[in-house]
Formats: sequence, structure tokens, C-alpha cells
Amino acid sequence: MLKYLYSFGRKKTDGNAEMKNLLGGKGANLAEMSRIGIPVPPGFTITTECCNDFFKNGGSFPPGMKKEVTAALTLVEEELGSKFGSPDNPLLLSSRSGARKSMPGMMETVLNIGLCTKTIPGLIKKTGNGRFVYDSFRRLITMYSDVVMEKAEGVEPEEGKGIRVQLEAIMEELKRKKGYENDVDLSVDDLKYLCDEYRKKIKKVLGVPFPDDPMEQLWGSIAAVFKSWNGKRAIAYRRIEGIPDDWGTATNVQAMVFGNMGESSATGVAFTRNPATGENKFYGEWLPNAQGEDVVAGIRTPNPINESTKMDQNRHLVSLEKAMPKIYKELFAIQKKLESHFRDMQDIEFTIQEGSLYMLQTRTGKRTGTAALNMALAMLKEKLINEETAIMRVQPEQLEELLHPIIDPAAEKRAKAIAKGLPAGPGGASGHIAFTAEEACELAKKGKSVILVREETSPEDVSGMRAADGILTSRGGMTSHAALVARGWGKCCIVGAGMIHVNPKAGTMTVGSKSLRRGDLITLNGTKGVVYEGELRMIDATENPGFKKYMKLVDKHRKLGVWANADTPGDAMVALEFGADGIGLFRTEHMFYGENSDEPLFLLRSMIMSKTLEERKKALDKLFKHMKRDVKATMEVMNGRPVMFRLLDPPLNEFIPDDTVKQKELAHKLGITLAEVKKREEFLHESNPMMGHRGVRLGITYPEVTEMQVRAILEAAGELIRSRKKALPEIMIPVTCDVNELCEQKKIIDIVYKEVIQKLRLKKIDYRLGTMIEIPRACLVADKMASVAQFFSFGTNDLTQMGFGFSRDDIGGFLGEYLDKKILKDDPFRTLDQDGIGLLIETGISKGRSINRSLKVGICGEHGGDPASIDFCNREGMDYVSCSPYRLPVARLAAAQSEISLKVAGGNNH
Amino acid sequence: MLKYLYSFGRKKTDGNAEMKNLLGGKGANLAEMSRIGIPVPPGFTITTECCNDFFKNGGSFPPGMKKEVTAALTLVEEELGSKFGSPDNPLLLSSRSGARKSMPGMMETVLNIGLCTKTIPGLIKKTGNGRFVYDSFRRLITMYSDVVMEKAEGVEPEEGKGIRVQLEAIMEELKRKKGYENDVDLSVDDLKYLCDEYRKKIKKVLGVPFPDDPMEQLWGSIAAVFKSWNGKRAIAYRRIEGIPDDWGTATNVQAMVFGNMGESSATGVAFTRNPATGENKFYGEWLPNAQGEDVVAGIRTPNPINESTKMDQNRHLVSLEKAMPKIYKELFAIQKKLESHFRDMQDIEFTIQEGSLYMLQTRTGKRTGTAALNMALAMLKEKLINEETAIMRVQPEQLEELLHPIIDPAAEKRAKAIAKGLPAGPGGASGHIAFTAEEACELAKKGKSVILVREETSPEDVSGMRAADGILTSRGGMTSHAALVARGWGKCCIVGAGMIHVNPKAGTMTVGSKSLRRGDLITLNGTKGVVYEGELRMIDATENPGFKKYMKLVDKHRKLGVWANADTPGDAMVALEFGADGIGLFRTEHMFYGENSDEPLFLLRSMIMSKTLEERKKALDKLFKHMKRDVKATMEVMNGRPVMFRLLDPPLNEFIPDDTVKQKELAHKLGITLAEVKKREEFLHESNPMMGHRGVRLGITYPEVTEMQVRAILEAAGELIRSRKKALPEIMIPVTCDVNELCEQKKIIDIVYKEVIQKLRLKKIDYRLGTMIEIPRACLVADKMASVAQFFSFGTNDLTQMGFGFSRDDIGGFLGEYLDKKILKDDPFRTLDQDGIGLLIETGISKGRSINRSLKVGICGEHGGDPASIDFCNREGMDYVSCSPYRLPVARLAAAQSEISLKVAGGNNH
Repeated sequence: MLKYLYSFGRKKTDGNAEMKNLLGGKGANLAEMSRIGIPVPPGFTITTECCNDFFKNGGSFPPGMKKEVTAALTLVEEELGSKFGSPDNPLLLSSRSGARKSMPGMMETVLNIGLCTKTIPGLIKKTGNGRFVYDSFRRLITMYSDVVMEKAEGVEPEEGKGIRVQLEAIMEELKRKKGYENDVDLSVDDLKYLCDEYRKKIKKVLGVPFPDDPMEQLWGSIAAVFKSWNGKRAIAYRRIEGIPDDWGTATNVQAMVFGNMGESSATGVAFTRNPATGENKFYGEWLPNAQGEDVVAGIRTPNPINESTKMDQNRHLVSLEKAMPKIYKELFAIQKKLESHFRDMQDIEFTIQEGSLYMLQTRTGKRTGTAALNMALAMLKEKLINEETAIMRVQPEQLEELLHPIIDPAAEKRAKAIAKGLPAGPGGASGHIAFTAEEACELAKKGKSVILVREETSPEDVSGMRAADGILTSRGGMTSHAALVARGWGKCCIVGAGMIHVNPKAGTMTVGSKSLRRGDLITLNGTKGVVYEGELRMIDATENPGFKKYMKLVDKHRKLGVWANADTPGDAMVALEFGADGIGLFRTEHMFYGENSDEPLFLLRSMIMSKTLEERKKALDKLFKHMKRDVKATMEVMNGRPVMFRLLDPPLNEFIPDDTVKQKELAHKLGITLAEVKKREEFLHESNPMMGHRGVRLGITYPEVTEMQVRAILEAAGELIRSRKKALPEIMIPVTCDVNELCEQKKIIDIVYKEVIQKLRLKKIDYRLGTMIEIPRACLVADKMASVAQFFSFGTNDLTQMGFGFSRDDIGGFLGEYLDKKILKDDPFRTLDQDGIGLLIETGISKGRSINRSLKVGICGEHGGDPASIDFCNREGMDYVSCSPYRLPVARLAAAQSEISLKVAGGNNH
Repeated sequence: MLKYLYSFGRKKTDGNAEMKNLLGGKGANLAEMSRIGIPVPPGFTITTECCNDFFKNGGSFPPGMKKEVTAALTLVEEELGSKFGSPDNPLLLSSRSGARKSMPGMMETVLNIGLCTKTIPGLIKKTGNGRFVYDSFRRLITMYSDVVMEKAEGVEPEEGKGIRVQLEAIMEELKRKKGYENDVDLSVDDLKYLCDEYRKKIKKVLGVPFPDDPMEQLWGSIAAVFKSWNGKRAIAYRRIEGIPDDWGTATNVQAMVFGNMGESSATGVAFTRNPATGENKFYGEWLPNAQGEDVVAGIRTPNPINESTKMDQNRHLVSLEKAMPKIYKELFAIQKKLESHFRDMQDIEFTIQEGSLYMLQTRTGKRTGTAALNMALAMLKEKLINEETAIMRVQPEQLEELLHPIIDPAAEKRAKAIAKGLPAGPGGASGHIAFTAEEACELAKKGKSVILVREETSPEDVSGMRAADGILTSRGGMTSHAALVARGWGKCCIVGAGMIHVNPKAGTMTVGSKSLRRGDLITLNGTKGVVYEGELRMIDATENPGFKKYMKLVDKHRKLGVWANADTPGDAMVALEFGADGIGLFRTEHMFYGENSDEPLFLLRSMIMSKTLEERKKALDKLFKHMKRDVKATMEVMNGRPVMFRLLDPPLNEFIPDDTVKQKELAHKLGITLAEVKKREEFLHESNPMMGHRGVRLGITYPEVTEMQVRAILEAAGELIRSRKKALPEIMIPVTCDVNELCEQKKIIDIVYKEVIQKLRLKKIDYRLGTMIEIPRACLVADKMASVAQFFSFGTNDLTQMGFGFSRDDIGGFLGEYLDKKILKDDPFRTLDQDGIGLLIETGISKGRSINRSLKVGICGEHGGDPASIDFCNREGMDYVSCSPYRLPVARLAAAQSEISLKVAGGNNH
């Protein structure tokens, strides 16, 4: 026969922490605490297997259960010296769910089981506290009728007509009549009255009476907890989280203990170390004569747990250390024991009942990024954990906190949000509203902090974006222009805040009925995507001294290269500072955007407008100088680390101004007519530019454009070598779908290479030729591509666009609905879709490497900074990921964690 | 030792027709003819292996070759009683290339080898024809100096300065001086003079003398033929045709025979059956006292070969049958023998030298579509071939000829083309030019034939397109609106004729300096894409009585279902007539295009403009009636055959007029402001609509749109069933990329299904639910898709667009260059790319069937009518292809041929 029941307590403990699958997380931890001698209220866990069999049997318990429960209950009664259902010294029980994985709030709990007509007098006598007893009874009736009698029985009341609501209405009515403000104003008689009225109501509404038999209450509660596994909320949650239906939940039946039984009783929550800073000090709060929920509810200000962690706002309150020194000592020893037992900072709950300390729960404590990092380093030093564990202890995203100023959480709690958008650039920023790039620059020049607010941004806004402390747009997604630029600079940014209406002409932005004007102060939380009115206090966590130490440790454990996307010498310097192993994406078109772009952009435009090859070449010759300068300076910064130059990618029409005023200007400068500009624009117009004449397609139809770029790259490298510096350029062809495209471009490169070598009198210039793999077909014919390419850089943005048929610019119309309806689990532009796009990448890598074993493989683009995607890349055996400089620490940590996970799983496949 | 030389002739024949790899096509067939007793001028073939070894040895012959050649030559000399190099009775030889696969005109030939100072007098004596001898010598010198002395030696003269050009200049100069018009005016002395001058020139230009030794001539000629395998033209041709470099060419050395040795000599070409009609009559032309090239050159009108095939234009000329009855009888027997030997119509060349008949060549004859079909049926009846062979004998594209009127080839030969474009709709059409849909309709009403000429067409031109006999556009590709609509109707159409400038306002079209006006007559050849001025005679081959018989035979041998794309009851009737097994694509949006679309389009527009769900539902309710009517009538026509209804596919913005005038109209009709229309248009505007808010994405965000369509389909089917008719609707969800989309839509369908069943009091309605697979990701997650879908219809147009990242509308900028530079072999929108997109499809099928073995799989779209793509679909084990009704016969034949090829290869994988 299966063992369906595991006891825990001083008398007997069957389970331990490893048995989460069978006992659920809560049950396993209760057993574990009990096993290592920590005082917990005794009880027993009914297993998840029992739950599954319960459903298989059509909702009845397996035979023999009654006997097992009775035996286990006897152990509890013996330990506590009280008896379940006894009129003299009654034992009260709780029944709580506990699945393999935490499903917070999705399943049910019943407390105070065992209170009934028969046991109430005994409990009053024992506690001398009638009010407490009737309040407990009221709570039992409410919970039981809701959870056991209504939900578990599948009664489906009308919206807002559930039994709990109806019972609470009775109480509200009484309070209203008596003029009470709080529940605590209710007297013993009031509570007694309520218990009577509740039971009447239940009989009337549900047709059956509230059971007055403790055993009936207990079995009803156990069954109800099981049934809540198949409640609507729980099922929906499982769907989302991908939890299998056949895991089942365990039920934990445990003796009730009360912290509100007088002055020798108390309750509290604590952390074994400071969860905000990581400081190694026992840290917590407690309340004398109170129940657990009182500490959390925030109605009473809780007391500090000890003297050393007192702060200004609670210095006047008595600490547990002072109030109950013996108990505090016991608690201190327990928390120490728990931390070293679980080898991590614990979040604990305890109750002191009439001088006896009970631990109700222990679990790994949540912490801030700073705390996570500090604790990991400290515990490593204390030899509590090893290096791998220290690395796994910080979530990659938490590093963001250490890299950007953030809004002071205390200030943010008090502030009122006026709008929400997509969190496109992390950190916090306050500043004066500017509606145009010019305004932003002006304000910045005056030394003022600025938030640039636009409907959406375009390359022409770049100078203003650079000047601003934060950027807010009312349109666009996570990969819109604003988002991309902001992340590239590590700048705070919120995009797609659709409820905001921006009117630059009027100089106002409105949200609902609220209107803000140019120069008004606002604050952005770019990590959460929330906009606040006014200026909020910022805190700066970027100077954490442990950061460098920690990153060094991280790098020791990662294999995956972490490269940066950088288009300028300045970006390259930032990238180096944040630990880049190379540059994985230098976009040659960069010189047409941003500051100092006026001349190159004009030259490009005159090239586009050229009528003859000769005119085009003349413009290209001039562009050549600009490009060589940028390329050379960037390689010089990188000092021999590889730099991947992606040849011109966007369609040409992207560079022609689209409004008539600017077109006129251009026509004037070029000495042609407006009509000619318009005609050319129309000629270049495309229905679906994303799949149009761009990337290598430009290089094929305008070989001279490829030639100019390649010459700039190779000459720059050659000149550095001649002046005894290091340079390792990598030429990357974008938007390829067939090896013949590479062959065509290679012909040009080979010719230019020979010419450059000759001109500079060099024996050779080391460089590599490779390709973006961003068109689905490129993955499918990757074996052929690899016969020419020395490296593949997966462009997962475009691969996702074309693989899904999702235009990044147009998903606004439906992606929200797709995520709401859980058609897609994640935005595939944020986290790589491993099922579909991942399969393409896998195909590309294995086909490519089948031909060219030394093929270097990586990704550039947004996914290169996303931890889940980085883990995928590492598992697929890529050589590197490339991401924005400010994401490098996150990427480095994610890469190391992936490597450690692989080792643990024994599945390192490269 | 390898055998490098194979003799053929009466004395000894080593080879046969099977030895094409070793002897080349020509050599193998010469051996075969000789082997079965057909008289051919004797000779020998030097093998392709010898050619390869020749190159391996750095351009020298393997040892022992000289001996082999001498021995073989002796056999030839013995058979003919003449001697190579003999002053008295000299034998002349030819040296011709012959590769495994025909490479017409890509390699070299040398004729009259053996003529020299020593042999000339003997030959003059023997033939009594000094003019003939010196003319032959002149030809030898020209060919030899060009082929052997210049090309084979790798001399690269400047453009237009080759030796052949310089020699011909001497002759032209002489003719000019003497006032001759034709070569035949040259006297013996003139020719003798030319031979001298030629040799002087050669010595001067090439530095070496023309060889006067027959043996030197022979070896030089053999080597030159080998070397021509690696000539520029031959290499380029091999690249294009995918012929491996290591095949090599054979060289055929053969005795020369002359048809111009007097009145008992003659030459001719003939077909064993009529190549234009297929009639089983020996058919050909001959010329007395002439060389082969004279028959082909068209300078002399050739005589008919026999009495029964005389026609008006040659009735006055003497037939071979009458002129040389004995020879004719011999020839007739030979052609009969050849046809039954090769079991196919033969194209033969013969020469009669002084009363002796020699066959110079036999090969499978080219034929028209009509002839191919008629011959196949006749030969099957004659038991010359079996059914499979009969089916393989007609090329699928040839059936087009039988389905459309075509321009009389004789008339077309004389006509002058004024423009070329893409052949978008096959057949021929003449008519008066109309520049707008209105003009076209008016002209048609007056009973005039019309060619609609537009820059490009849009849905608003549809009525005019229907009224026109042919359509011509100056923009757009093979899948442009005009091309798709025209092919759907089997209408003659040329698109993308870029040299034509259309000016509808002025009522003119100009091509270069030529200008045509409204009402002028033009003729289109839609099969070739050529435009002619004026009206050309048409011939109608559509009434071929064998067609039905042949198609019945075809259907017997195909497994693949052939379905039609059809959106109306009328289309469905055409589809049935052309043998459709079902409808594979009924586009529900059809009702918004074309005639009678005014009301539905307005209703759709008002739905799009709706501000509330209720307004939208009101419009949908009205649309429902229109849709149900079309759907019902189509299913009624198809009488129980499956009809696949694709739910609304295009993005909504496609239905909003884009010019202000029409927007104003719409605003007025809807009772809203123009600003509102414009705002909505702007809201719906997309950067890349192909990857935007369309297909199932509309169904997800507007469930009521799916609901309306499904209700129309199911009610229509239900009503047919209630009136005891048959209906088998299949609901197809477009643009899916994840199974959850199907689940979401299935929820709606399930609800509607229940309601319809109830309303119509039916027990059930048989229907299937399936999906388009047109997004790359759908192929990658096809296993999951197949858990809900009962069928997959691969949308290879979109799959190609997204797989390649080629927007169909925008490829104009680079596709031409891609094809020219052979980066891509074919336009992937015409012929499915099997390497890349094919792999996606393969993945989709195997993943889908891994979950659902009975999954029905097919394709709809352009590729469904392309023979190479159909072969792919059949090999991949698809159940059906769906194409435009007019392509059905082509598709049926292609499907049968694929099946037969599979059987032959033993590789039928389904």
C-alpha cells in the first residue's frame, strides 16, 4: 500500500526537504525544519499522490486514510497535550495546500478547524479570552463556508453573490449600525451574534448547515484543499506556467498556534540578512499579542526585532531582543541554523504562543540586486556556498539595478502613477518636459535635467535624445527607434504609453483629464514602465564596490563570448569598460544618423539621387573618408579585438526626407528640382520595405557601394597595422539568402583587398568574411553559405520578423491581444522563440558546421542581451552573443549561469 | 588499356545507343544506326574518357592513339574505296563534337579535312567540279584557322579582329570589286585566288602557315574539338545548365559525303510524322545538287519529299518520290525503321551522293503541343509505346496551346514585335487599345475586341479586365494583380513591359519613338510575352478531339489530387470542366472585388469604420447574406466535392480607398466626416502590410468577423443538406504561426456549429478545419498545428516571400539582376525553391504527419500550376495541388508524369 501520510513534529518526522514532489514545497520544508530540531507546530502532510488518487476515485479518499489520519493526529495531540474535539483542552488545526512548485494564492486554506459548540467553552476557559475564541470561530465559519461548502462543491453563485460576500455584508451592517470603524471594535457579544447570524445565512443560502463536528470539519477541509487543485484559478495558472495537471497538491494539516493569546504571545517575520542591502545582520519585525497577518497588514507599526537594526522610525519601539531576551536568543540561534542549513538567506515566520516559540515557515528570501550580489560574495567568503552557487544567486536582470540610478523605492511607493508604457530602457530619471529635440538640447545646455516626450522618435531626434535624461513616447514597441537608441545608450526610456496625447505645437501632453506643459517635471521608472508627475528622489547603486569582483568571478565561469553592438569609438570605449570581448555589430549606416551626420547624410542622399554611375562614385569617394575615420578609430579603441562591420543594411528610401519642406531643401542643395526628388522617392518607395531592396541586395545592384565600404574597412585596418597597432576587422554581409550572394560580394572584396595590400605595401591584412543569418532561407541553406562565410551572425530580430511574419512596426494591432490571450507566451522580439525560430537557428548552426567545423557563430541584436535567449545560444554551442554595451554585465552573468546549469545537467553539448 | 576509339560503319560497329556517356549523343546514335543496318558515312568516335585524359595529360593524346586512329581509318577507307591523303582518290573527313547531353552550338566542328595541294587535283578529277573543290577548300581554311589555329591555341584577338572576320573581309572585298551579289557568283579562279590570299593572311596574322598535310589537319581538328569543351562559351553553358565539367566531349571523325556532286546528288531533312499536326505521314524537304545547309538556310525553296504532303506553295516542285523513286523507297523504309527502333518521331538528315543514300543524323523530333498529343495517342494505339510513355511524351506546358487560341505562327513570323514583357497569361489576343476599365467595357459592349493597357491594375479595374480580350501592363511581375487575375480567368496577359509608357489622360502609349492611340489595334502573345502592332490571325486549337481521351489516360496514372482555386460558382463550373477534384482555395474576400462588389465592399468598409462592436456586428450581419449566397452556390456546383474556404486574409487597410475623392464619397455615404475616414486610414496604415494585421490575426482581434464567415459557410452547407444536396465545406484559417491561434478560432467555430445544427435541426454537418501553412514558423511547429488542424494547405507564395525575405511587390529593384547574375536559377515565385522553401515544406509535412497520420496536405497558389513544383509536391507525398482552373490540365499531366518518374526511379515514397 502507498504511504499517503507523512508526519512532522517532535514525536516523529517522516519527510525531508528533498521530498517536494511528494509532499509539496511547504510540507517538505516543514518536515525538514522538524527533522533538524527546529520547533514547528506538529502536524502531517497528505501526499500529492493521495490527491491524484482522490481524483481518480471520483472525489473520495483511498481506503485506510481514516486510520492513518487518526494515528497521525494522536501524535500531534500527544506532543501538545491537547485533544482535537476535546471540550476541555481542544486542539485546533489548519489545512493548507502545498504543491511541488509555489502557486501563490491559487489554492485554498482553512484555519481554526475544530472550533464548535462543544469546544468553544473549553477554549475560552483555557485562554481566558472569549473575544479571541469567537473571532476565531467567525473566521472559521467564513472560510469554511466559502472554501468547503461553496467552492469545493462546485456551487457557482452569481458575480458578487458568493457566501463570503454575503457573510461580510452582515458584519458591515452590524458595524454600520453600531458606528464601529474597525473590526477590533467588535465586542465578544457582537462576535457571538455574528457567528449565529452567519450560520443561519449559510443554512438558508447553501441549504446545508455549517458542520458542528470537528472531524467532519477536518475531512471537509482536506478534501476542499485537494479540490482546489482543479479550481478555475489554479487550472488557468497551470496553463500559463506550464505546470502539468498530474502533479497534484499535498495538504498540510497542522496544529494552530496563536500569537494573540496575551502578553507572552507574539508573532513576527524576519530575514536572516538584510534583504535590501545584503548586510549580514538578523533583520525583522514583530508584534506582541498579535496574529501573523497583523504584522504584514500595516495597520500597526511593527516593532524592530533587535537593537542593532533599529531605525529612526521605529527606534522608540521595544525590540524582541529586549522584550523577550530568552526567546530572542532561541530565535536567533534558529535563524542562524536555518541559514546555514539551507545555505541561503531565509525569510522566516514565527509565532510565540504563551512563551513557546514556533517556526511557521522558512523560505529563501527575496532580495534587491545589490543585496543579492553582496550576499553572494559574503557567503562565498564565509564558505557557505561555492563559486557556482554564488553566480547563480544573482538574477541577471538584477544587475540592471547596479548599473542605473533608480527611483528611491520609498518615494515611489508614495508617488502616484499618471501613465504606463513599455519599459524600454531601465533605471529611473526625472526632468523637465521637452517636446522637441531642440527644446531638449536647449534645456540641457542650461544644465537642466530633461525628459524628451514625443509621439515617436526618428533619426532626426537623436541629438535631443542624447541630451535628455529620459525618453517617453506615446507610440512604438520595445524595438521602436526610441527603444533601440535608448537601450544602446543605457538611457531610461518608456515607449508606447498610449494614454498620453502629445501636442508639441501646443506644448502640452495630456493623460485623461490631466494636462502637463513644457518644462513641467516628470519622473520615469524605465524598469517598470511607469510615469509619475513631479520629481522623485533617485538613488545611485552604480558604485557598488563588489561589482567588479563579482563580474570577474562570473567571467571565470562562462565560456560564451560576450560582445557589444557599437557604432562609434565612444560606444566601443563603453563596451570595453563593461567587459566586451569584441564588437559584434558595427552598423556602417551609423554615420548617417545622430550628431555630425549632416555631411555624410547629404553625401549619401546625393549618391541616391545620382543619375549616373560616375556621379554615384563621386559621392561615394567623399563618403569613404567619413567611414574610414569612424572605422579606424573604433578598431583602434578595440586594440586587436575583433570588430564586425555590417555593410549597409537599410533600404535607400529610408534616407530620403519624406516631407516636402525637407525635400525642397535637399533639391536646392543638390541643384535639382523638387520633382526629381519626388520622382526618385516614388521610384524607391516599397510596399514592404522590410523585405525589399536592402542589405546585400543593394551590394549586388550597386557593387560600388560594397566596394567603398570594404575599402574603408581594409584601408583603416591596414593603416593601423602600418603604424604598429592592432586591428582585426570582420566584414559582415547582411540580408543574405543564398551563397551566390556571398560569392558575388567576395569577388569585390578580393579585388579591393589586393589593391589595398598593394597600396599600403603590406604582406597581408588579417580579416574575416562572414554573413548575417537573418532570412529564414539562409538557415535552410546554411551548409552552402558556410562554404564561403567564416562566421555566421544570427540576426534574430529579422529572423523573428520573417519567421513569424510579424512586422515589428505593425504588431501593435494584435500582439497585445496575443499575449493577453496567451496565444504567445512572450513577445518574441524580447525573448527568442525557441520552438520555432530556435529550430531555424539550430538548423543553421548544424548545417553550417557540417561544412565548416571552425565556423564562428553568434547572434547580434536585442536577444543578445536577454538571459533566456543567451542560455539558448550557449546551449546551441554558439561562440558569442552581442548586445548593447549597457547589457554586457547582464549578458556575461547569463552566459555564466547557462554554463553552470549545463554542467549540472551534464548536458554541455559543446 | 582503355578503349579510346569506337568505329561505326558497314565493316565494323563497336558502339550503340546506350553508350551516350562514353560516345556522346551523336556518336552513340551514329553507332546505333550503323548497328541496325542504316547506311551512315563510316567513321569512328573518340571517347569522352579520351577527352578527360587529354586534359589530364596537359593537352596531349594518350599513347597508342595514333595506332588506333590509323586502324580505324583503314576500315573507313576500305568501305568507301578511297584513301585519306591520296592524290588520286582522296577521302575527306569531318571532326565533330558530341557530348553526353546536347550543347547546341557551344563546341566546334571542322569539315573537309584532307584537302591540300596534294589531294585537290585528284578530287577535281574525280568530281569533275573544280568550283566545288575550291569552295570546299576555302571553307576548310576558314574553319581550320578559326577553330584549330586561333581558338584552340588560346589566341585572344581584339573584338571583331578574329581570323575568320579578316578572311571574310577578303572575300567581301573581292565580291565588291567584281560586283558580285552572292557567293555563288564566285568563279573557280576567284575561289582559287581566295584560297591563296587566305593562306597568306593566316601566315601573317597567326605567324604559322595553314598545314598542307592531311594527317596534321586531322590531329589538329580532333584536339581542337576536345579543347572546345573548355572554351568560354561551353563553360558558361555548363554553369547555367548544371552540366559537370568532368563529363567531357567525344569527337566524331566521319567520312564527308556531298549532296552537291551533280544531279544524282541531293540532300534533305525530314520528320517521320508531321511535327505540326502529328499526322502519321512521312514529311520533309529536299534539294537536288545541294548541301545540307542550303535546305535550312531558306535561300532556295526546298522541294517536298513526297506527293501526299505537297502543299499549295510547293505543289509545282518535284518530289523526291517522283525524282528518285528508288532512293525514296529506300529512305521511306529507313525512316520507318528508325521510328520503330527509337519508338518516337524522328527528325532525320540525309544526303544522296551520286546515287548513294547516307543518313547523317537522327534524333527525336521537336513538335507542337497538338502534334505531341496526337502522336502520343496514335503511337499508343499502334502499340509502339505504352501508356506511361504516351503520358511522358507531352510536356505539360504544351497543353496550354490546346487551351487557348494562339497567334498563327506563320503570321507571327512576319510580324514585328514592338515590346516585350513577362508572359503572365498564355495564348494570343488581338484587339483595340483601351486605357481605362470604362473604355474597355464600352468597346466590348459595342462588340469590339479589346486589349486593356494600364500602367498596373488594381481591384477597381476588374470589370474592364473581364471585358478585355487581353491585358497589357507596363509595371508589375508574374504575381502582380493583373497577372493573378488574368491567369485565374485563363486570359491572355503581358505584364511589366517596362519600355511602354502609358498615358491614359492623353490616350496614348509610347514605345521608343512609336506612339499608339486609344482604339489602335495591337496583338499580344501571352505565352512568350511579345507585343505586336496591328491585328494578327489567330488559330484555335481548343477543339482537339484527342484532348479528353488523353486527359483520361493522364488521370488514370496520377495519384496526386488536382484541385482548383475558385471564388465564384462560375469559376467552380470552369474548374469542374477542366477536371478539378475539389476547390482548394475559395477566398472569402472575393466578394469585395470584381463586379457586383459595390454593396459588399461598402458593407465591409462600414464595418471597418465602425466605432463600436455593435455597429460592426450590424454591418457583418448584412455581409453574411452576400457571403452565404456565394458560398452556397459554389458548393452546389461542386456537388459534394470538398471546397476549402479561406477566411478573410488581407489587411483591412487594403479596402479603404486611398484617394481623397473616394474617401469623401465614402464619408458621405457613411454619414461621417472625411477627417474620420482619414484618421481611420492612418490608424490602419502599416509599414509592412504583408507581415501585418491580417489573416487569423484579424480573426483573433475581431472574433465577430470569423464568426460571420463560419456561420455563412456552415449555414450554406446545412441548407444544402436539408434540401438533399451534397456539401463538403472545409474551413481554412490563413496566416497562422501557432497552434493557439487555431485553438482560439476553433472555440468560435464550435459554438457557431452547435447553433447552426440546432437552428437547421440537423444531426451533423460534415466539415473539416484546417490551416494555411504560409508563415515559416508554422512549418517549424507543424506538429503542434496538426493536433488541431485536419488539413494543411501550404501557401507557397507567402512562404516564399517570408522565407526569402522577398516582398513580391518590391523585387523589381533587384530580382532581374539576381537572375542575370545567376545568383538565383529561377524566379522563386514561378518555380518553388526546393532547396530552401522545399525544406520548410518537408519539415512541415513530416512534423504534421508525425502527430496526425491522416493529415491532408496540399498547396494552393501559383506554384500549384507549375510542373516542376507539382513534381516536388508529389514526391513529398502531398495529397493535392490547387491551381487556377485554366492550369488544371497542365497540373494533371505534371502530376501523372511525376508519378511515372517516381515509379521508374523506384522511389515512390508514399
